Amino acid sequence: MAKKIASARISAESSQLLQELNNSLPFDKVLYREDIEGSRAHAYMLKEQGIISEEDYEKIEKGLYEILKDIEEGRLSLDGDDEDIHMAIEGELTRRIGDAGKRLHTARSRNDQVALDFRLYVQNNTKAIAELLLENIQTLVKVAEENAETMLPGMTHLQHAQPINFGYHMMAYASMFKRDYERFMGSYERNNYSPIGCAALAGTPHPINRQTTSDKLGFNAPTLNCLDTVSDRDFALEILFNIATMMMHMSRLSEELILWSAAEFRWITLSDRHATGSSIMPQKKNPDIPELLRGKTGRVNGNLVALLTVMKGLPLAYNKDMQEDKEGVFDSVKTALLSLQVLNEMIADMTVNKEAMERACMVGHLSATDLADYLVKEQGLPFRDAYHITGNVVNLAEEKGVDISELSLAELQSVDERIGEGVIALLDIRASMNARQSEGGTATNRTLEQVESLKAWLNSLV
Amino acid sequence: MAKKIASARISAESSQLLQELNNSLPFDKVLYREDIEGSRAHAYMLKEQGIISEEDYEKIEKGLYEILKDIEEGRLSLDGDDEDIHMAIEGELTRRIGDAGKRLHTARSRNDQVALDFRLYVQNNTKAIAELLLENIQTLVKVAEENAETMLPGMTHLQHAQPINFGYHMMAYASMFKRDYERFMGSYERNNYSPIGCAALAGTPHPINRQTTSDKLGFNAPTLNCLDTVSDRDFALEILFNIATMMMHMSRLSEELILWSAAEFRWITLSDRHATGSSIMPQKKNPDIPELLRGKTGRVNGNLVALLTVMKGLPLAYNKDMQEDKEGVFDSVKTALLSLQVLNEMIADMTVNKEAMERACMVGHLSATDLADYLVKEQGLPFRDAYHITGNVVNLAEEKGVDISELSLAELQSVDERIGEGVIALLDIRASMNARQSEGGTATNRTLEQVESLKAWLNSLV
Amino acid sequence: MAKKIASARISAESSQLLQELNNSLPFDKVLYREDIEGSRAHAYMLKEQGIISEEDYEKIEKGLYEILKDIEEGRLSLDGDDEDIHMAIEGELTRRIGDAGKRLHTARSRNDQVALDFRLYVQNNTKAIAELLLENIQTLVKVAEENAETMLPGMTHLQHAQPINFGYHMMAYASMFKRDYERFMGSYERNNYSPIGCAALAGTPHPINRQTTSDKLGFNAPTLNCLDTVSDRDFALEILFNIATMMMHMSRLSEELILWSAAEFRWITLSDRHATGSSIMPQKKNPDIPELLRGKTGRVNGNLVALLTVMKGLPLAYNKDMQEDKEGVFDSVKTALLSLQVLNEMIADMTVNKEAMERACMVGHLSATDLADYLVKEQGLPFRDAYHITGNVVNLAEEKGVDISELSLAELQSVDERIGEGVIALLDIRASMNARQSEGGTATNRTLEQVESLKAWLNSLV
Amino acid sequence: MAKKIASARISAESSQLLQELNNSLPFDKVLYREDIEGSRAHAYMLKEQGIISEEDYEKIEKGLYEILKDIEEGRLSLDGDDEDIHMAIEGELTRRIGDAGKRLHTARSRNDQVALDFRLYVQNNTKAIAELLLENIQTLVKVAEENAETMLPGMTHLQHAQPINFGYHMMAYASMFKRDYERFMGSYERNNYSPIGCAALAGTPHPINRQTTSDKLGFNAPTLNCLDTVSDRDFALEILFNIATMMMHMSRLSEELILWSAAEFRWITLSDRHATGSSIMPQKKNPDIPELLRGKTGRVNGNLVALLTVMKGLPLAYNKDMQEDKEGVFDSVKTALLSLQVLNEMIADMTVNKEAMERACMVGHLSATDLADYLVKEQGLPFRDAYHITGNVVNLAEEKGVDISELSLAELQSVDERIGEGVIALLDIRASMNARQSEGGTATNRTLEQVESLKAWLNSLV
Repeated sequence: MAKKIASARISAESSQLLQELNNSLPFDKVLYREDIEGSRAHAYMLKEQGIISEEDYEKIEKGLYEILKDIEEGRLSLDGDDEDIHMAIEGELTRRIGDAGKRLHTARSRNDQVALDFRLYVQNNTKAIAELLLENIQTLVKVAEENAETMLPGMTHLQHAQPINFGYHMMAYASMFKRDYERFMGSYERNNYSPIGCAALAGTPHPINRQTTSDKLGFNAPTLNCLDTVSDRDFALEILFNIATMMMHMSRLSEELILWSAAEFRWITLSDRHATGSSIMPQKKNPDIPELLRGKTGRVNGNLVALLTVMKGLPLAYNKDMQEDKEGVFDSVKTALLSLQVLNEMIADMTVNKEAMERACMVGHLSATDLADYLVKEQGLPFRDAYHITGNVVNLAEEKGVDISELSLAELQSVDERIGEGVIALLDIRASMNARQSEGGTATNRTLEQVESLKAWLNSLV
Repeated sequence: MAKKIASARISAESSQLLQELNNSLPFDKVLYREDIEGSRAHAYMLKEQGIISEEDYEKIEKGLYEILKDIEEGRLSLDGDDEDIHMAIEGELTRRIGDAGKRLHTARSRNDQVALDFRLYVQNNTKAIAELLLENIQTLVKVAEENAETMLPGMTHLQHAQPINFGYHMMAYASMFKRDYERFMGSYERNNYSPIGCAALAGTPHPINRQTTSDKLGFNAPTLNCLDTVSDRDFALEILFNIATMMMHMSRLSEELILWSAAEFRWITLSDRHATGSSIMPQKKNPDIPELLRGKTGRVNGNLVALLTVMKGLPLAYNKDMQEDKEGVFDSVKTALLSLQVLNEMIADMTVNKEAMERACMVGHLSATDLADYLVKEQGLPFRDAYHITGNVVNLAEEKGVDISELSLAELQSVDERIGEGVIALLDIRASMNARQSEGGTATNRTLEQVESLKAWLNSLV
Repeated sequence: MAKKIASARISAESSQLLQELNNSLPFDKVLYREDIEGSRAHAYMLKEQGIISEEDYEKIEKGLYEILKDIEEGRLSLDGDDEDIHMAIEGELTRRIGDAGKRLHTARSRNDQVALDFRLYVQNNTKAIAELLLENIQTLVKVAEENAETMLPGMTHLQHAQPINFGYHMMAYASMFKRDYERFMGSYERNNYSPIGCAALAGTPHPINRQTTSDKLGFNAPTLNCLDTVSDRDFALEILFNIATMMMHMSRLSEELILWSAAEFRWITLSDRHATGSSIMPQKKNPDIPELLRGKTGRVNGNLVALLTVMKGLPLAYNKDMQEDKEGVFDSVKTALLSLQVLNEMIADMTVNKEAMERACMVGHLSATDLADYLVKEQGLPFRDAYHITGNVVNLAEEKGVDISELSLAELQSVDERIGEGVIALLDIRASMNARQSEGGTATNRTLEQVESLKAWLNSLV
Repeated sequence: MAKKIASARISAESSQLLQELNNSLPFDKVLYREDIEGSRAHAYMLKEQGIISEEDYEKIEKGLYEILKDIEEGRLSLDGDDEDIHMAIEGELTRRIGDAGKRLHTARSRNDQVALDFRLYVQNNTKAIAELLLENIQTLVKVAEENAETMLPGMTHLQHAQPINFGYHMMAYASMFKRDYERFMGSYERNNYSPIGCAALAGTPHPINRQTTSDKLGFNAPTLNCLDTVSDRDFALEILFNIATMMMHMSRLSEELILWSAAEFRWITLSDRHATGSSIMPQKKNPDIPELLRGKTGRVNGNLVALLTVMKGLPLAYNKDMQEDKEGVFDSVKTALLSLQVLNEMIADMTVNKEAMERACMVGHLSATDLADYLVKEQGLPFRDAYHITGNVVNLAEEKGVDISELSLAELQSVDERIGEGVIALLDIRASMNARQSEGGTATNRTLEQVESLKAWLNSLV
């Protein structure tokens, strides 16, 4: 057992200070399941290799199982003054089963034990986040399918640019979350190697079998080099980065939900349960949920920076600085799980105000590019010249206070005689949208093709 | 009262999710003292201005006082399902004193209320941190005074460079902490303005007097513009930055304590209570405390990044994203307070191994610069030429396996005849240290002068 | 002279690699003015103290003056293969004036030289940024004064909340920039101490006078402890943080300029020279400038993180890692100077679309709080009850499709009989704004008071 | 062509300011190769689809080829005042080949063009970095193979812990770089999709074929949704994160190289060309290169934070903020390429001081764990009891001033009689190292197994 950091000559008060700094139980107790799972696999291997007796193994297995049940059913609390979750559980085990409990720590160290527990936590939560991403993609795909004909102005620079449909817009976010899913699962595979058996830093003289524990715990194989393994936190950095990138995507969607809820847009209406009121202004309905999701990019970026900073310049192998690796990961994971669940509900429940969106399409000469494209395709003008003529048509419409789709042929030809009758149909906003037939484009049929593509992908994962 | 975010049609489970995202009580309950202090000042002003009756005021004042006592003495818990600390306390007050409790929220909004509570928290903790900095400076100055003759190799690039004394080295950290102190107090002064009375964003039609609340709460004056005030979090950014810079200084000192504790140095010995053992290696004594302090730079950098990210691009005035402003500040403040207390103990308790330090001074030709300086000062050589000759002397000593202070005059002159007898005394390591007589230099008398200077400064603050 | 990092046995290619990593001249040449200014002060002091001869001093002074002129007038380029700006200038000096040039480096080291040059750069640019902040405040104050009667909806959560005026809104940003100014100048004062004379880390045996150089260079005094001084980069962290906070403020204003330029708002029109077109959509006018300013928060946050990371855990004193301190500061300073100049032009040139802003005030029942306040003040209701009645009035207006200011007295009384005739005047939007008479509030007279206050402050600085 | 941001009425000075902020040519000219490569593929597709004539295509192809050659051979400079690299090259092309040049921009926009160029740059450099990682792994493996019997103290908390060999230590870094390689290549695969043909945000009405350009450019397929594609910068975030993680690994190795070069260790000697001297201390040899590599973690962390900040909360699709995406990536890529090349040289050239390392193994009772393990394995004691006895043996050795491997059997048995004769051999330091036979352990044969494993992996990649 580790020498207690507090000795007799330390006053109660300062001893508390030091333990407050040093003890990790208040936060690493989250890992109790992983710690017990890891210990059970380790004990099984020790027994298989003849390092501990069958009898000791059975006591350990039963003891750990009961401790797990007692924790999960609220009979055992983890708020004691043990230094960390590993000591807390091993101590409890020894109190329950005696010397056999002490034999559990044979051929391992806290260094590989914590590396195992933390990695199991990250792997389990990587999968949990990935599952929630799939649910969100499903919801977005559903909303997209329902809205492949719902027109709205596509924006660049927050300025109306070209007509698109709302389904197409939702598919952009579905595409981001698909990349997120792939990023999380890529990390899962890359890091699915077992640290247990590395002991303090150099392996152990005990005749252990790391393949046994690796198999038992669902890893691909044991890690290659133990010195690396006990001080490797790449897996933790990866989940922090993956969450930061995912939350960045969510912050973009949230920004749009906030804009679209503003009086100036009213393109969507969030359900009452995703909005709140004001303590002083009774008429307010505020998009609190997307604001919170947008704000949470801060903490997940911060957690990533924190661990990158902690790891900088640490000599091999384990250093106590690395105890600072967990709280940020726990916080980012909790944030990710909660945010994905809430977002999914919010998107499923929101009302799409189709008329408001379509009305907005008559602002901003959205089919201007179509006129330019017509001049290129039908009249053979270089694009840069077509661009210039179109600019003049836009100016004419502005003078008359109408959208260019409302100009007559005569008016159009007053700008340039090469504009022919075929243009009138092209300038219609819906025609303009549906003209964008290139692969990945916004035309309703292309949008539905994207919907089908993601549905097929989702099905392929089941 | 804010419309509850959950309505009847929401299933229990999802309602919990949403509240988990939205409710800030689990963390902002830390602010109960500031919330009550602010409400008492607000109620007093409302009464003075005739906005509420004397009788209502007395009920409010008594009610808040008792709530405070009940919280502090453990009779009232803040773990209910109120949305935030403000609602929790106002709700409790109204349960206790009826309608008068409802009148407390007259002429204010949650926006200025939270701005006040949070600012009071930051101001109070700025002072608490500043106090602890002074204690650390005192300890460092004491250690410095005791060690103004304890020689060690001054390093650049972690290579022995010139002889200095340990007191001088400690004074470097005292100087950093002095700057930290000044930085915290500069922020305190710059932000000591009262937000209360700004209401939601535009002020209030009630005939309030912001000067009254400002005075009552110890601020310099009310803020200038309410729209700015309710969305200003500069004060929070400043404390985060000040803590990050201070912890960076602490990480440097910690790095040195870790190095000096290594077998290769053994220049200091940390007291047993600031070191821990290993669960597998009984011979280990690990410098866990300085490692943790070094590692905590990660989280405080992360908290700073988090809030800078949250605030980026937010339109005026309050947005719910800003609820993400507090947890990072609470965490950095807690880290700062704890770290400063522990550091102070650790420095006071460590043993300085004077012989080991002085022995190390015989490695690395620490007086080489003195030889070069001699050639400049006494023989009138350009520095660049003196530098070259000294390099040759160093090479000679290396060949003979001695320090240059151990070479004879004949040996020295074999390199260059201009080296005269006076050099022998100069090459002595202690003489070399004491030769650095320039202001701010390492000579023992100059070090003691620095000690006196900081003592005088500390006295001037009382 | 520093041993060249490349020796004869190194192939040309790899030598280039290593020099590319090591040499700082490509970026630190920006410091040529500060390097020369510092060397002139150092040479003057050396002469005054009798360390170099009057004759040498005159050569040095003249040589440095001419080098400065030659650089500024384009006759001398700093693109050689010297290791850094200090070697480049000293080398040039020695080529021009011979041995006297070599004597310049007496009693100093590159460590205090670079500390001096960099600090001078930061101090000079702190003042330059502060000056531009004052210009921006002046512009904002002017726009504010012109628009103290221009009404617009004050927002929280990007939802219409209460009527305010555009002058008041501009004064919020003027207040932020005032805090920025004070923060920069606070840093200036705190760091205005002279590093020169600290030599490598321990001071020097030469009889220098640090007060002389300090005075000559405009510092308050020499620094206290040389070991601290040569590895102190707090001043650089402070300017990075101050810029990051300032750019955060600018990102908020930029966000609003972008929103207000959107088709959905059209509350302002940026001048043509602050907007650009699209290469494919001839009708577009994009708010590129505020988008770029908003985006630049990224790089300045990054630069702050970079230096905090570099400094973490560095043992005393100088380590080569610290060469990484400059590029980020140069980049943030350049970004700050340019952004402030552009913002100032953009604000001065934008057109405020008063009708559009005032029209928007009829959306969102902006005077709802006034009704609630009336019920509290005139009818003595607790605020929470008044809030409830007001909510019902809002619902009635929504049903009728009007703003609450358009409801008749009878309609209002149908909700609650306690609503008296006096309410009609209060619900008027401009009356509502002007009712917010509390200190710091939005009423036109209060806004103008804020304008006067900042004008007086600006005048006090001249 | 984009409307020039400066018009006639703008004074020369301010026009320059605005262009300085807006123009990206000064940094995006780095992309000239990618821009030309992308344009050639686009032109080929346009011709294949009959959108431009065969004749125009040949002019474009020839024109672009010659422009590329002229740039690479220094005949064409990219320092004009064009807005960006795309305009610079298209403008040059049109000057050379007339109207055909204008037709190149048909069916694309700057939005998909910049998305293509930047992605090609990232993909190309991902591969370049991956190649250099392999070279570094090769070097580390070679050093490892040569040093599988070179003993040194394995450390935790910078305290001697257990004996390991230097080869094993190098294999830890080889393992990190292997994960880095896999991370870079995982990103390469995940992002290898073609953006071109997405046009501004919605696709194009022109009958393009995105499969053609995708194939021509070496992508797996076109991207799924164009709205996502033009504002997707995940690929840029990934390379920034991958570089940050890799540089973190390098900072750890650098920290160790710096420590091992210190007078207190002298475990390695860097070659002269990777160390530099001091301008004032002729005896110094400083490990500048590893210090710089360690310091460069700052800038790469900063660049990652910068882009995460830029992307936060941006509505779809392209916003000008995104012009801030490139400089940080260029800087991190340059840093990565240079650092990897230099590190590779430095590791290959360093001298391993075997005697110094092995001497250090006699400090710290490195075989203490072996004694504890013996008591568990041979005497059947619970580990926790064995740990206690070993502690007493260590105390005895400390009293006698020797390493525990130097104690006699009688001395050992004076602590506990259960210590048998077999222990003597186990306490030998080399025996202790070679006892760590578990998979991934430090025993020489296990180290060589790791060496073979990585060699086989390297071979599998060719």
